[in-house]
Amino acid sequence: MKKRLRKETRVSDRRAPLHLITPDKFRDQCAVFGISGHREASNLTYLGLYALQHRGQESSEIVSSDGEHFFVEKGMGLVADTYTKREIKHLKGTKAIGHNRYSTAGNSNLRNVQPLTVNFAFGNLAVAHNGNLTNATILRSELEAYGAIFQSDSDTEVIVHLIAHSKGDTFLNRLVEALSLIRGAFSLVFLTDQDVIAVRDPWGFRPLCLGRFKDAWVVASETCAFDLIGAEFIREVEPGEMVVINDKELTSHRPFVMPERPAKCVFEYVYFARPDSKIFGTSAVYPIRKALGRQLAKEASVPADLVIPVPDSGVPAALGYAEGSGTPFEIGLTRNHYVGRTFIEPEQSIRHFGVKLKLNAVPDVLEGKRVVVVDDSIVRGTTSRKIVKLIRQAGAKEVHMRISSPPIIAPCFYGIDTPTQKELIGHSHRVEEIRKYITADSLAYVSLEGMLNAAPGRKDHYCHACFTDQYPIPLTKEEVLQLGLFETPTSSS
Amino acid sequence: MKKRLRKETRVSDRRAPLHLITPDKFRDQCAVFGISGHREASNLTYLGLYALQHRGQESSEIVSSDGEHFFVEKGMGLVADTYTKREIKHLKGTKAIGHNRYSTAGNSNLRNVQPLTVNFAFGNLAVAHNGNLTNATILRSELEAYGAIFQSDSDTEVIVHLIAHSKGDTFLNRLVEALSLIRGAFSLVFLTDQDVIAVRDPWGFRPLCLGRFKDAWVVASETCAFDLIGAEFIREVEPGEMVVINDKELTSHRPFVMPERPAKCVFEYVYFARPDSKIFGTSAVYPIRKALGRQLAKEASVPADLVIPVPDSGVPAALGYAEGSGTPFEIGLTRNHYVGRTFIEPEQSIRHFGVKLKLNAVPDVLEGKRVVVVDDSIVRGTTSRKIVKLIRQAGAKEVHMRISSPPIIAPCFYGIDTPTQKELIGHSHRVEEIRKYITADSLAYVSLEGMLNAAPGRKDHYCHACFTDQYPIPLTKEEVLQLGLFETPTSSS
Amino acid sequence: MKKRLRKETRVSDRRAPLHLITPDKFRDQCAVFGISGHREASNLTYLGLYALQHRGQESSEIVSSDGEHFFVEKGMGLVADTYTKREIKHLKGTKAIGHNRYSTAGNSNLRNVQPLTVNFAFGNLAVAHNGNLTNATILRSELEAYGAIFQSDSDTEVIVHLIAHSKGDTFLNRLVEALSLIRGAFSLVFLTDQDVIAVRDPWGFRPLCLGRFKDAWVVASETCAFDLIGAEFIREVEPGEMVVINDKELTSHRPFVMPERPAKCVFEYVYFARPDSKIFGTSAVYPIRKALGRQLAKEASVPADLVIPVPDSGVPAALGYAEGSGTPFEIGLTRNHYVGRTFIEPEQSIRHFGVKLKLNAVPDVLEGKRVVVVDDSIVRGTTSRKIVKLIRQAGAKEVHMRISSPPIIAPCFYGIDTPTQKELIGHSHRVEEIRKYITADSLAYVSLEGMLNAAPGRKDHYCHACFTDQYPIPLTKEEVLQLGLFETPTSSS
Amino acid sequence: MKKRLRKETRVSDRRAPLHLITPDKFRDQCAVFGISGHREASNLTYLGLYALQHRGQESSEIVSSDGEHFFVEKGMGLVADTYTKREIKHLKGTKAIGHNRYSTAGNSNLRNVQPLTVNFAFGNLAVAHNGNLTNATILRSELEAYGAIFQSDSDTEVIVHLIAHSKGDTFLNRLVEALSLIRGAFSLVFLTDQDVIAVRDPWGFRPLCLGRFKDAWVVASETCAFDLIGAEFIREVEPGEMVVINDKELTSHRPFVMPERPAKCVFEYVYFARPDSKIFGTSAVYPIRKALGRQLAKEASVPADLVIPVPDSGVPAALGYAEGSGTPFEIGLTRNHYVGRTFIEPEQSIRHFGVKLKLNAVPDVLEGKRVVVVDDSIVRGTTSRKIVKLIRQAGAKEVHMRISSPPIIAPCFYGIDTPTQKELIGHSHRVEEIRKYITADSLAYVSLEGMLNAAPGRKDHYCHACFTDQYPIPLTKEEVLQLGLFETPTSSS
Repeated sequence: MKKRLRKETRVSDRRAPLHLITPDKFRDQCAVFGISGHREASNLTYLGLYALQHRGQESSEIVSSDGEHFFVEKGMGLVADTYTKREIKHLKGTKAIGHNRYSTAGNSNLRNVQPLTVNFAFGNLAVAHNGNLTNATILRSELEAYGAIFQSDSDTEVIVHLIAHSKGDTFLNRLVEALSLIRGAFSLVFLTDQDVIAVRDPWGFRPLCLGRFKDAWVVASETCAFDLIGAEFIREVEPGEMVVINDKELTSHRPFVMPERPAKCVFEYVYFARPDSKIFGTSAVYPIRKALGRQLAKEASVPADLVIPVPDSGVPAALGYAEGSGTPFEIGLTRNHYVGRTFIEPEQSIRHFGVKLKLNAVPDVLEGKRVVVVDDSIVRGTTSRKIVKLIRQAGAKEVHMRISSPPIIAPCFYGIDTPTQKELIGHSHRVEEIRKYITADSLAYVSLEGMLNAAPGRKDHYCHACFTDQYPIPLTKEEVLQLGLFETPTSSS
Repeated sequence: MKKRLRKETRVSDRRAPLHLITPDKFRDQCAVFGISGHREASNLTYLGLYALQHRGQESSEIVSSDGEHFFVEKGMGLVADTYTKREIKHLKGTKAIGHNRYSTAGNSNLRNVQPLTVNFAFGNLAVAHNGNLTNATILRSELEAYGAIFQSDSDTEVIVHLIAHSKGDTFLNRLVEALSLIRGAFSLVFLTDQDVIAVRDPWGFRPLCLGRFKDAWVVASETCAFDLIGAEFIREVEPGEMVVINDKELTSHRPFVMPERPAKCVFEYVYFARPDSKIFGTSAVYPIRKALGRQLAKEASVPADLVIPVPDSGVPAALGYAEGSGTPFEIGLTRNHYVGRTFIEPEQSIRHFGVKLKLNAVPDVLEGKRVVVVDDSIVRGTTSRKIVKLIRQAGAKEVHMRISSPPIIAPCFYGIDTPTQKELIGHSHRVEEIRKYITADSLAYVSLEGMLNAAPGRKDHYCHACFTDQYPIPLTKEEVLQLGLFETPTSSS
Repeated sequence: MKKRLRKETRVSDRRAPLHLITPDKFRDQCAVFGISGHREASNLTYLGLYALQHRGQESSEIVSSDGEHFFVEKGMGLVADTYTKREIKHLKGTKAIGHNRYSTAGNSNLRNVQPLTVNFAFGNLAVAHNGNLTNATILRSELEAYGAIFQSDSDTEVIVHLIAHSKGDTFLNRLVEALSLIRGAFSLVFLTDQDVIAVRDPWGFRPLCLGRFKDAWVVASETCAFDLIGAEFIREVEPGEMVVINDKELTSHRPFVMPERPAKCVFEYVYFARPDSKIFGTSAVYPIRKALGRQLAKEASVPADLVIPVPDSGVPAALGYAEGSGTPFEIGLTRNHYVGRTFIEPEQSIRHFGVKLKLNAVPDVLEGKRVVVVDDSIVRGTTSRKIVKLIRQAGAKEVHMRISSPPIIAPCFYGIDTPTQKELIGHSHRVEEIRKYITADSLAYVSLEGMLNAAPGRKDHYCHACFTDQYPIPLTKEEVLQLGLFETPTSSS
Repeated sequence: MKKRLRKETRVSDRRAPLHLITPDKFRDQCAVFGISGHREASNLTYLGLYALQHRGQESSEIVSSDGEHFFVEKGMGLVADTYTKREIKHLKGTKAIGHNRYSTAGNSNLRNVQPLTVNFAFGNLAVAHNGNLTNATILRSELEAYGAIFQSDSDTEVIVHLIAHSKGDTFLNRLVEALSLIRGAFSLVFLTDQDVIAVRDPWGFRPLCLGRFKDAWVVASETCAFDLIGAEFIREVEPGEMVVINDKELTSHRPFVMPERPAKCVFEYVYFARPDSKIFGTSAVYPIRKALGRQLAKEASVPADLVIPVPDSGVPAALGYAEGSGTPFEIGLTRNHYVGRTFIEPEQSIRHFGVKLKLNAVPDVLEGKRVVVVDDSIVRGTTSRKIVKLIRQAGAKEVHMRISSPPIIAPCFYGIDTPTQKELIGHSHRVEEIRKYITADSLAYVSLEGMLNAAPGRKDHYCHACFTDQYPIPLTKEEVLQLGLFETPTSSS
């Protein structure tokens, strides 16, 4: 879910992290998890969220139900730091859903932590959201005109108000009516007093997987959550599918008018998902990343003594590049994994300080060498520039940057917190200009065609709007303005 | 404000106090404070809440406005423990309102802390409430049928939903419409982006005072808040009055159909208000409590060697009794003021343990004496019983209990958290039976007539429902059932 | 125990209170408690410390022993806020000792919390100290020359180093040797793997009481600790007595060369002890305070309409004055008991702000009246001045201050944290000058003779050095200099 | 530094981590850092400790000096979570030292956090220790007999007591005397009011590096600390060298009788040090680890489809093995880096649960393949067994385990917290037995000879006691018994 830009009330929360070291990467992904029909529902949700930690480290929340009451525990920070044994015990019942949220600077507080929980005319309701609605601001204004009072500034809350304002006579009818009104990306998991309900938008932007743990059904953003608890991966929740799970059985619904074709986020393969996860079907992420590296070698190999990854996300593509090009693979940059939540900058400027907090070059590997360095993407270019300088400072003779995705030229409206278009170096600069900026001897990106070739299945079933400015859902002018990510409205129809 | 009995969602809050030592007394009073037009608005609100701490120790919250944004700080526990200097600084703007809340066992958490803050079609709104609505459950059901989603289980939230659902074209019109629908006791302070608005119900159940601090207007539950900051007490906000204060000026409105006569809570004089406060007009509380003691001496004096108070609340009445009866006044019970937030009970039973945590008898004073002990009220009788035993154990020859109010026979619907009628010893037992239960040599209460004589002004301008079962606002059968405080619906005419 | 002035290492402790509102009164008293031979030893110690909270609110610690291991729990703040049930459970064994410490500005941290616990050649040892050693600095220097390393800057640690450096062959022999070297005021409770040992200095400056709880022996600074747990007060630990308690039996030792006469702190009667406690024998504190008030009336009554106390400590003396002079007793100042741990001052100066945080005047009582106000002592005079102004502002026609002890002219070396002599208004100004400074219409102190008459037993068995500059233990010039409380060394021999 | 086995006092610290997920690896390494002569000394120490986080994650402390006072900040947990900006600011002065400590189950509390800080006859002193003294227990007993009182149960405290008890007339003389009495492994950094002093034991067991940051000298356990702050690596502090640094200059001393040859810990190369660090001279760790892998391939390659590392520590050796054997390198196990501080186990047994928290297999890589898996060492064998099963479960046809060090057969006395000899699977079982236990198709370790060949410099300059039971410092029978790591005293000559 994505936050509204307007923000009127500032609640200070003392448990909030003071400062998180965030990468020069896309942010604001989230993880969802749900289980129905197991007496350890909350403990398994906890483990599922633990496995999905890479999709959101800012906050975490679990809501469980014993059929009568809801039980809620939440906190800022990592899953393993948020909950105590006593708290997990407190989460009674055989149904539970959970959510991890990524950090977005400044607005981090418990008020916006998900799942969102309300009590309304039909009883209790909780919802966890991965994605972003493109018409949330417009729907919110309409709902407010009807007297709705919003607790948070998240787009997710619009969904529960739509349900509450629906005139449907059953909860499912109301839910279907609400879903028919929202547009954008949503992998949603609902909890009611009776059921766990998982819904994926008709385009299938974000992944959502269905599994089986003994007699219970489980849903999760990625299959790595199933691996940890030992659940079996059954299949995806399909684009446009609504799955209703009560303790005993699962029923599948198709409440949406379907678009011509799905629009799965190809960037999940490039960067977001865990390499050991299966998403969008049966293929794991790792071999696809390697294939991206091999494709890169095919398209843009360069004579070099060694190829090194930007750890950790660049490792599979670097291995693929090594394989494809015959260049020896080495670890030339080491990563500090003990990053922690607050960091105090030194007063004076230490050269390339920011990147050094996480990466350090190994001169013994790099000295005198022609080095290819492989990363998954370039957003603003500032980190890449620092990495090139770090490698050169360690004695490399040549530094060639290779990127396992095409240049990012447009913001994402479907759940990833990109900077505004102006800040995207791929939008404002050509490749050769970027190369100069990052001070590399050469720079090459994998082509769109090449990237889509590496991904499994039909090429036109992926969303690649961030690389092509071609958005699967036409945006109205009003929506574009309210999302506020372009300087001038783009003709994205 | 009073909590709904239905409670579906349990959010654990780790900052909540684990266990509060609560007296065998009425609870659930609250304090409100507001100021408009001073650059130190939040600091002065903090001080005002500090002075009003006796009306609520469970939680505290301050909301300020700079005309554009709201700023919120809150916490569980005492005012002086809740806020830091940095947090008060964070509360920008020249307008602020605040609220202290009393403890009610179990449901204490940040979710229900007031002021309640929302953002709706007309901008920001915060409200602090002292009192209790008698038709909140019915209104809530209706609002939920219209799609309203409630954040909390407090009656106060009904008011903001009524405002949000009103079709009025200005905020004040909407507020007036909402106020016309609610019934019960309410001293309310609202904060909007423009104004601080103070409203008192037409019966004037709870106090609400208006003061002047330099160029700014202030409102507070009691005048002791004005004394601390050095504000001048101007007058009461009158029953049925709505006062709108913006930075420069104050306007008074009369939005209500008025009842025949006011119904000010006489128990504020007996127990709640601070003795140095002026409430309900120009008289301070202390001399009224003394008058109650003198009246008690007139009605029910007994030959004795000394009269002692149950500290601290019984002190003025005991002094009055001493004066009226000529019995020497002594301190025979000392009070431990360092009570703290959590207390660990000893495993074994120590005799009269509970009361000893707060009170200890002084045998040097009591030994061999005929002792009159003065308290303000008896709720369940268990504490009185322990006190009598403590005094007798310290060597008193006779123990005569005198109470500066009549027997409590009925629950309060106007903002005080009484037990159910069945638990009120004054309802289920006659005075002689109570005397036996508390093991006193004699027991006498002041008469209703006597109590009302001691209070200033017209006797029929007070609510004395808890002593007489005569409620100023007729309750419908449905309301009585939903309040859940009677075993069988009472004829509350 | 008293802190050294020299302080080299500054450890920040994040749990420490930021700012404590401390009265313009003597500070740095402490409470000690010990029990041996009961399976709930730690829980009873917790309750004992709770009852002794008035002698120290800054920090608290309990050490228990199961005969083999020591178990320690401690924290900053009130007893009831410091410990959880789990922590008390963690304190295993049938023996325990505890300590409360008063706040001294700035140096409050866990490092100096008592009991002090060490492990040395003879096993485990813990010690809790109420009092102050006058030769600690000299002993410390000597011990350091022998290689001793000090953990804290408290005088108490000197005692354990003396024990550790002793050549005695048993612990008791070592303890006796150590005790023979220290001078000053000490009511000490030791815990070893075998015993609880209570020692009182030969002058008996500070109280120490012995009681019986079922089969177990208990020691405590005051008997109010026995009252709470239902223990029986047996007798004082006598000046110069060392009492060794193991689970089964108590043995009494007299290890000291005794002075001509004891020197019990008369100020314990005037201010420190709880009014319901018995200290220094069989008399409770409350009647002695009343006697001080009667004596004050006898020596210095003045025609007045009413007498009011400075609450809470002035109440008994004011009652005595009322009795002695026939002046009506009233409550003209009310006290706010919810003081809390941190307080944020308003930026601007509010008149008489500091004192208003705790006291508020009741104009209905004071207006137009000639008022006698009774307090127990004047230290710097600043608070008295504010109180007089507060009363006059409330409309009093005349304000007569009466003090139930003589002027304080000299610092205490025996456990009370007095300001330097220069800051004592009783040292630098005559009574008439003080009257002018505090702006009272008249001012009178009880005489030394009068005060000692009110105290039980022989007058020459009390220490009254703070009123007379006559110190029971001659101080060497070196000691006086190191204590740093005089501008120029006084001839105190 | 290593903890004593005897532990009499249990202080509960509420800030301590409840449970740390610790690997089946050696533990109890520590990091030291020191700087003298820079106005940002404490901030740079903070950064140095941040870079050295891999050597200790349990607790961290910094002590600074302004020449007059010491300033101390410390806490449990990661460096970046322990300090706030305000706290670093509080650490005044141009000299500072710091320490990170590794977790050892149960005894984690602030009491044992280093640097150890004392105030003694010569002023302030702080010391940070990496290593372990073998004669600490004996020295401690002797010191206690002389009256020394110990604050902690660490061997490091022995050193400061030796200094305090020395009769030397200068601090350096006393330090040299103390150093002459201790035996074992010690890389020490001292802070006094004047100097920072770095000392390395004559065998040079643990690394200690000397660097230059602008005009200031810095010392650190590893050079990665220099890289982060941009300091220049000058040279090792040599075995047996004592370096005294004041703000302006550095002097080198040789206070020890030197052994025949040094005994640098070869395991630093195998596992402990960061791959990008230079230790024991000029070679970085990464190429040595790769050389170990190549050696492994030379000694024990096996026909296979791919080689995978146990991440992260096994990566360089696996790359070396791939290079040496021509087997393709793959990432077949992914690692979860968001481990957090507390973890709640599921009630039921999930298969191979423990290892899954950190590692997950990638079936797409492993399915149907003959897999070589490379790890750095096997301690108890339980983790290796789980890893083999995880790989096989992911579909591997064959699993061949290769270890880049010889079997561990004996405990370490020089600063690494090994289990007792009985628990070392390399001591109790032969290689073939271990292979069966871990259920691998084949298992091979690099030979001692091979390992020492891969390390730079002379082979007999390394300590390899844990692989050979040949301890460089002969242990007395008494020492062996007190270290408690053998069932029966071994002939450790």
